[in-house]
Amino acid sequence: MKEKEEVDDAQVNEEVENGRIIFRKYIDRLPQVSDFEYDDESTIKLKVAPGSGALLVKNLYLSCESYMRGRMQDFRGSHNPPFTPGSPIEGYGVFRVVDSDNPEFKPGDVAVGVTRWEEYSLLENTGQLRKIEREDIPLSYHLGLLGMAGFTAYAGYHQVCSPKKGDYFLVSAASGPVGQLVGQLAKLQGCYVVGSTSSNKKVDLLKKKLGFDEAFNYNEEPDLEAALKRYFPEGIDVYFDSVGGSMLDAALSNMRVHGRIAACGMVSQNSMSRSAGIYNLMGLVLKRVRVHGFLVTDHLHLFPKFLEDIITLYKEGKIAYIEDVRHGLESAPF
Amino acid sequence: MKEKEEVDDAQVNEEVENGRIIFRKYIDRLPQVSDFEYDDESTIKLKVAPGSGALLVKNLYLSCESYMRGRMQDFRGSHNPPFTPGSPIEGYGVFRVVDSDNPEFKPGDVAVGVTRWEEYSLLENTGQLRKIEREDIPLSYHLGLLGMAGFTAYAGYHQVCSPKKGDYFLVSAASGPVGQLVGQLAKLQGCYVVGSTSSNKKVDLLKKKLGFDEAFNYNEEPDLEAALKRYFPEGIDVYFDSVGGSMLDAALSNMRVHGRIAACGMVSQNSMSRSAGIYNLMGLVLKRVRVHGFLVTDHLHLFPKFLEDIITLYKEGKIAYIEDVRHGLESAPF
Repeated sequence: MKEKEEVDDAQVNEEVENGRIIFRKYIDRLPQVSDFEYDDESTIKLKVAPGSGALLVKNLYLSCESYMRGRMQDFRGSHNPPFTPGSPIEGYGVFRVVDSDNPEFKPGDVAVGVTRWEEYSLLENTGQLRKIEREDIPLSYHLGLLGMAGFTAYAGYHQVCSPKKGDYFLVSAASGPVGQLVGQLAKLQGCYVVGSTSSNKKVDLLKKKLGFDEAFNYNEEPDLEAALKRYFPEGIDVYFDSVGGSMLDAALSNMRVHGRIAACGMVSQNSMSRSAGIYNLMGLVLKRVRVHGFLVTDHLHLFPKFLEDIITLYKEGKIAYIEDVRHGLESAPF
Repeated sequence: MKEKEEVDDAQVNEEVENGRIIFRKYIDRLPQVSDFEYDDESTIKLKVAPGSGALLVKNLYLSCESYMRGRMQDFRGSHNPPFTPGSPIEGYGVFRVVDSDNPEFKPGDVAVGVTRWEEYSLLENTGQLRKIEREDIPLSYHLGLLGMAGFTAYAGYHQVCSPKKGDYFLVSAASGPVGQLVGQLAKLQGCYVVGSTSSNKKVDLLKKKLGFDEAFNYNEEPDLEAALKRYFPEGIDVYFDSVGGSMLDAALSNMRVHGRIAACGMVSQNSMSRSAGIYNLMGLVLKRVRVHGFLVTDHLHLFPKFLEDIITLYKEGKIAYIEDVRHGLESAPF
């Protein structure tokens, strides 16, 4: 036994190669390939120190989300602190536990939570990790449909939009992981749902795979106000806004009386040092519109119900989910 | 008797002089004296036609309110239609009934409602008029504290602001008839109240007569964001916004988590063909702020309770009201 242990110790104390995607430096523009570096010279021990409470995990899926653009700026006023230059990108991932000093996790467990863009990660903060029970659902979905994106859609839809059957419902960034679910939840409730997206291919997906009533490519609409008037001749009851900027402005002048706007993010603004102006706020008063900014972190008590509801809907075939997956860590930012 | 009636008929059929303030033509800038004309050549019969249901009234007080600037524009998208060029200005007034074909009103009654800027008015739409019971309160207060302005303050405060004791509360246009009451209601609830206004004299009134904790003259603040940061080092819980524009923008970047903005009007924008841009909406998401446009017309069921509450508070000396009164119809616009 003694000998065997010594052999094991020797093995796990050996360092293995650990490819990493390094965040280089803060930016105040759209991200470029050169903002990232693939470091193939790093190594890591596949063992955690006793008493540390940490996990050593093998990352299986890492998610790339729009909020990360905000973390690439040297801005400390957000709920998300900026990335650390010279260190790997931080973000949600699905991973398998290799070694554990935490009684809640044992080697072989698969879990989801904040990890880093590298082959293996030593995770010292384990409080927010969630073990994945096998649900006959693709593991990667825990980063989207069943992850923060899906939960953002679910919480925003139910807690902020006050949707009613028959509502005229606009979703921007509609083919993203949040927009997909928002639109499908609205359809299930009997709303008329129009999605705005960035390509004709995504327009097709929205209408043919996700059941949106209509969808349009905003890049082909020189006048967004006119586009919205065309898709919503009666006006918009609910706008689920993930982009801000000119789409928000155009929506503001097309809202119906007592309309609601869920302000979930302003992706169009994340990469600009000064945001675009909004000019149509007077419509808020005339139409008695409510704009409600929200962050999913205020609604965490709903997470178990969210998982139960969405897993059920997915298994019943009532909602679909479309992913965009790249293979291999080194291809992540490129 | 017959003779007497004939004499009366002769008297009331006689026309009397009826000075009027005429709205000349639509504008898209700040109003000027030349947009109005005092017509001293008009006459009117002091009698209503039998079967008309109308009232002939002597106007006692007429109110001049900021929303009227919107009615001076040729813009039909609002809840308030534009004025008619060549006709007297329309607006709220307190008047005494001279002749009535309406069983609800008799000569001598005093009432409040929509009338015109003229000595005498023939009022054909009597459905929205409200007879004033003598309450030991100055008649003119029915155009402000107890009128649409006061009711706007009351409904917006109670229905939109979700105020709590200890809230940090900002009121713009604070010395106007809406702002005065909003600020005092917030003080009565135990909020810390700061008013923004347009002159040092009004700053004094707010602090010394109306009990605001602080007040400032926005004309002396080159950087509104910095001014708000000075008055609200902890941030703003509630902003009651009647002005929009740069004050709204500055408030947006000074809101606290879960702050509320009641968008009651955007006076700063009424007279401009294109409104000023708002740039700080991302704060809505980060701070999970709710902006709620409202019009008092959605809350008319609260009017009786409003009157009862505010009359009680006024009689108990718990709220004050400051008017700006001009004497003589011909001086109204000048």
